[in-house]
Amino acid sequence: MFCGVDIGGTNAKVGLVDEAGHLVDHDTVKTGLYKSPADLVLTLAYTILRLAKVNRAKIEGIGVCCPNACAIDGTVANAANLNFKERFSLTELFGTYFPDTPVAVDNDANAATLGEQCYGKAKDLQDFLFVTLGTGVGGGVVCNGKLVYGLNAMAGEIGHIIVEPEGRACGCGRKGCIERYVAAPGAVDTYLEICRENQIEPRADNYRALADLACAGNPQALQTYRNMGRYLGRFLANLACVTAPTHIFLFGGVTKVGDILLEPTRRAFYENLLFCYQDRIKIELSGLMDSKADAAILGAAALAKARK
Amino acid sequence: MFCGVDIGGTNAKVGLVDEAGHLVDHDTVKTGLYKSPADLVLTLAYTILRLAKVNRAKIEGIGVCCPNACAIDGTVANAANLNFKERFSLTELFGTYFPDTPVAVDNDANAATLGEQCYGKAKDLQDFLFVTLGTGVGGGVVCNGKLVYGLNAMAGEIGHIIVEPEGRACGCGRKGCIERYVAAPGAVDTYLEICRENQIEPRADNYRALADLACAGNPQALQTYRNMGRYLGRFLANLACVTAPTHIFLFGGVTKVGDILLEPTRRAFYENLLFCYQDRIKIELSGLMDSKADAAILGAAALAKARK
Repeated sequence: MFCGVDIGGTNAKVGLVDEAGHLVDHDTVKTGLYKSPADLVLTLAYTILRLAKVNRAKIEGIGVCCPNACAIDGTVANAANLNFKERFSLTELFGTYFPDTPVAVDNDANAATLGEQCYGKAKDLQDFLFVTLGTGVGGGVVCNGKLVYGLNAMAGEIGHIIVEPEGRACGCGRKGCIERYVAAPGAVDTYLEICRENQIEPRADNYRALADLACAGNPQALQTYRNMGRYLGRFLANLACVTAPTHIFLFGGVTKVGDILLEPTRRAFYENLLFCYQDRIKIELSGLMDSKADAAILGAAALAKARK
Repeated sequence: MFCGVDIGGTNAKVGLVDEAGHLVDHDTVKTGLYKSPADLVLTLAYTILRLAKVNRAKIEGIGVCCPNACAIDGTVANAANLNFKERFSLTELFGTYFPDTPVAVDNDANAATLGEQCYGKAKDLQDFLFVTLGTGVGGGVVCNGKLVYGLNAMAGEIGHIIVEPEGRACGCGRKGCIERYVAAPGAVDTYLEICRENQIEPRADNYRALADLACAGNPQALQTYRNMGRYLGRFLANLACVTAPTHIFLFGGVTKVGDILLEPTRRAFYENLLFCYQDRIKIELSGLMDSKADAAILGAAALAKARK
């Protein structure tokens, strides 16, 4: 059995995952309660040991995913939404409690990509792209059956591909990155722009409210998703030219609206796709989203499985 | 020793390449003289046998590169500048004359990419991009040390990434592909535009003349290359986000002007590159261009070596 640990700003989730990808047991730790990485990892280690004991599980490997984590040395620095800004090594901290168990560390986009490959819709695929749409846009690129890491394990930073050279300011210090148009905060910006242009009082100021409005059929909210789909579809059509994936999987909170985003994305994708790829590349929602198990835990467990 | 065969619209080149990447001997066949693929391959096979005999060489493998060739089944269809428009199989045609020698077929961009890896500057690199700038733009993507083929071996079609959604019409039927701005015909278009805007009589109507003008210091020609460099640098900065290459190699006729193109390309690249890649990704001219051997033959020979 593999153990998956997903460290987020609010919660850290710990789960045991069996060979078939079933979440056997899990627990949650409030990340915000801990003043140092060592304190947090102590509690996580205790949680892992307790879950293993209760479930009589032998843990073959531990996978830990965390924003900004580096797959090469297992360190985390400047994690956007953690209390701890200093650099710390998850590999070392977990290693003190589990000296004989392999510990694999990676960022959440890579973990989810491996999750799709181990437990989701990409089990038999050699070439696919995995795109996470949340507060930012992340990506996992799989070529020849292997996740691409590249220079310092920094491949897949597709959220920072510039699509509007004079566009919206991005947190990276540049302008017009795709994530400013298709991630959650960008979606809200687009919605507010559309309301302003149409002189309509906005009815949502955060992503969740916007998604609810769209699901209820609000015209400005639906127009927002059509705009996002146009950006996303064109962007993915361009990306397809690089590695020629057979499938593109969309994942993350933003995609929970389903067809409201998927339909305009697919339309723009096929309208803009190079002729030689036409009708050959599929865009689908991630298989991890259907699963009852927590996708982040599955992704983290897949890290451990992939490194084994 | 490996044999490389490069089939182009005007000439087909045949060469013997030793382990170290030296061109031992070579010969040229006029492609235009032949009425069928079988006739052309008969002459190429005869040329290979003659070179092998004269040089007392044992040929371990034959690599054949040809525009539009498919690496999977070794067929060529609709090759833009060959007389033969029907689909034919290079693997089968060469196989009849060399039943016991492995024959590897691929398109020219992939062949040149493998050439860089076998014989050029990319010998020890795991992750790099190879960009060919000629009458079009092609690419080879190497991740985890391996050339990426993707869906139907159609990866690396980076020339058809759209950078200007309402831009210049492209032969692919869409608008604004990068190759319309940085390949040879696009360069001439840009030069003519600049002359028109400045009400200056153009002094070049083809790429070679334009390159000569730039080398002689003509202001409009130099402005053309600055414009190309800006497009190319921005484009490569975006591409870097996908697979995080350590190096990007530029290859092909368009790059023969050297620093005139390289300098503005590098400037725009680093100006637009995401912070985490800064100072870590190098843009260089291909090592195959320095070599006295013909780059295309080296690339074709590398195909054979890589498949061995």
